[in-house]
Amino acid sequence: MADVNEGKMDADKGAKDDNPQASLPIRSYLDSTVVPILLQGLSELSQERPDDPVDFLGNYLIKNNPNRK
Amino acid sequence: MADVNEGKMDADKGAKDDNPQASLPIRSYLDSTVVPILLQGLSELSQERPDDPVDFLGNYLIKNNPNRK
Repeated sequence: MADVNEGKMDADKGAKDDNPQASLPIRSYLDSTVVPILLQGLSELSQERPDDPVDFLGNYLIKNNPNRK
Repeated sequence: MADVNEGKMDADKGAKDDNPQASLPIRSYLDSTVVPILLQGLSELSQERPDDPVDFLGNYLIKNNPNRK
């Protein structure tokens, strides 16, 4: 499908080539970026069982984002 | 661990008992609430490879939340 290594750049995504994770295989990419925080979020979610699970998880990720500088 | 079926309610989580998904096993609960949208989000994420993957996924969930009425 979409190959991010082809030098094809979206006008508003110019920073892609600066991203060392852009060339990882999908599984490695996900494992190194979102999986750890996602597992924490899913654990919290299954304990909380909030009214809106998707909203809860989305907000959990944003609030606990380890990448945020 | 935390057993949500013990009648133990947080003061600010009174709506829990109205939630038919509160009594599902963890795996079934996650599968029936966040897994489908999460798989879509992870697929988008692995194609986009944005600068901030956790933020991207969190916002994807919130924007594409199927529970939002």
